[in-house]
Amino acid sequence: MLAVYLESGRVEVRRVGRPRREEGFALVRVLCAGICNTDLELQRGYYGFRGIPGHEFAGEVLEADDRRLVGRRVVGEINLGCGACDWCRRGLGRHCPSRSVLGIVRHPGAFREFLTLPERNLHVLPESVGTAEATFVEPVAAACEILDQLRLRRGTKVAVLGDGKLGLLIGQVLHARGMAVKQFGRHAAKLRIAREAGIETARLGAKPPERAFDFVVEATGLPEGLAQAVGMARPRGTVVMKSTVHGRVAIDTAPVIVDELTLVGSRCGRFEPAIELLRRGAVRVGAMIAARLPLAEAPRAFELAARKGMLKVLLDSGA
Amino acid sequence: MLAVYLESGRVEVRRVGRPRREEGFALVRVLCAGICNTDLELQRGYYGFRGIPGHEFAGEVLEADDRRLVGRRVVGEINLGCGACDWCRRGLGRHCPSRSVLGIVRHPGAFREFLTLPERNLHVLPESVGTAEATFVEPVAAACEILDQLRLRRGTKVAVLGDGKLGLLIGQVLHARGMAVKQFGRHAAKLRIAREAGIETARLGAKPPERAFDFVVEATGLPEGLAQAVGMARPRGTVVMKSTVHGRVAIDTAPVIVDELTLVGSRCGRFEPAIELLRRGAVRVGAMIAARLPLAEAPRAFELAARKGMLKVLLDSGA
Repeated sequence: MLAVYLESGRVEVRRVGRPRREEGFALVRVLCAGICNTDLELQRGYYGFRGIPGHEFAGEVLEADDRRLVGRRVVGEINLGCGACDWCRRGLGRHCPSRSVLGIVRHPGAFREFLTLPERNLHVLPESVGTAEATFVEPVAAACEILDQLRLRRGTKVAVLGDGKLGLLIGQVLHARGMAVKQFGRHAAKLRIAREAGIETARLGAKPPERAFDFVVEATGLPEGLAQAVGMARPRGTVVMKSTVHGRVAIDTAPVIVDELTLVGSRCGRFEPAIELLRRGAVRVGAMIAARLPLAEAPRAFELAARKGMLKVLLDSGA
Repeated sequence: MLAVYLESGRVEVRRVGRPRREEGFALVRVLCAGICNTDLELQRGYYGFRGIPGHEFAGEVLEADDRRLVGRRVVGEINLGCGACDWCRRGLGRHCPSRSVLGIVRHPGAFREFLTLPERNLHVLPESVGTAEATFVEPVAAACEILDQLRLRRGTKVAVLGDGKLGLLIGQVLHARGMAVKQFGRHAAKLRIAREAGIETARLGAKPPERAFDFVVEATGLPEGLAQAVGMARPRGTVVMKSTVHGRVAIDTAPVIVDELTLVGSRCGRFEPAIELLRRGAVRVGAMIAARLPLAEAPRAFELAARKGMLKVLLDSGA
């Protein structure tokens, strides 16, 4: 089968053997997978990564212990917990200290024709969610995680800083759940996507609005985003940190302390609410797909995905 | 009267006029005042400060609208809110956007013989709290603020990182309120003070314990403290930020996001619980007083206070 390898910054397509299915695991034919900013960071050396990346995918189950899964279209949670520790027992396998992570930590990813994942990680897709659309379940779940972490009341004003792929999904998820979202970004075309989803938008000028929001979600993907988000938060406000940035970020801690802000790191979320939002059409991702290329053209797809202002690039498996 | 001036890094004692009491304010004779790390930061240029510093004090009321205050020994909350905004009405005048702050922002401080403060800022001291001891009410209140911000159950394990003045008070306050405190520091003599208060201590080696605590209070006063505290927190843990550091702090945000940590900025607190802890003898500060000098010797007192490892230096008013 074909598989995409990252090594020392290079993207290569190699021919490798199919993965072998172990007990408790399903063998999945990958149908479509999305390139995420984390994949671009992995290419740049985040986590000292080398191997097969890819963690946003939709596929079809070919083999599984649970016969009901075979032939079904699925998406898969990316954290492979041990299943036995305190975290796993609390349903928080995504914090299991010995976890591997699909396409990120010690488990080859979804940019290949076939993959294996524990059956308990899989979620069967409803008919009405398209395969390309389903590759967004993972990042939509990451957006939903904010709602699990903070208990926001409907109508709460939330600023979303950033109009990239994750920022736009976060805006839509919070809007769909009844928050009064204001999305800040630098790109007219991307902000239009938010506006078409019914979200209020604002171009981010040289000076973002100061101390204006009780809740700010930082999703710029840029090292300077955190300081900007901190400046936008009112005293006693909360800043949700969503940007994966490689390396160190410098912030002035004085306003965090003086204004007694709360900063909340936020990563992966549960898939159930994400699938439900896509099924209901409450989150729409069609306008966010910038390009679809076959798996064999992964090097070009990575190049495209890394272009400034590019939205989602998908890889279609030829299998 | 004598007053201490900070200007361009210099500490000078000058002779100036007594402050005039306005309506709603009390005129207070300062009896004793403590030099805080923030005062040393002000000397170094924090807030672009120049003027009379000092915000930890105990004094005696000479004149006030409220006759019951006259002649009483008092301590004073340091934030002077407008009294009319949303924050002030919620009892959070310490976040009033137009506040001045005793000895820090637009209100001359306590390193002088007489000061004025709004009467509503004053708290009458119980007989059993000594005057030198009472200069610790403000930092003990800052320690108590942690308990107002987080709702910690008795018995919760909390790491306190730092064995300086504020770190030792935080350790004692959390211990007095039933937390299982472990105090980390670099100074045997200071850790001994914590141990004598019944607190478990540990010398901080080159490698602090990793991912070991659900709650970590960062009170090192050092730019590298935050990254250390983040490393000590378990996934989904909370780091309380207590260090006032001048300038920018560099952290790797990846562990904050991957482990979904919460960072909570924490500043001033209510005086009532602090006075109560000192009255009951649940927090003892005697061992933390390193030197007492007359106000006229403020330049030397600042020099002493700035020495590495120095605990509290007090200034006695000659009035």
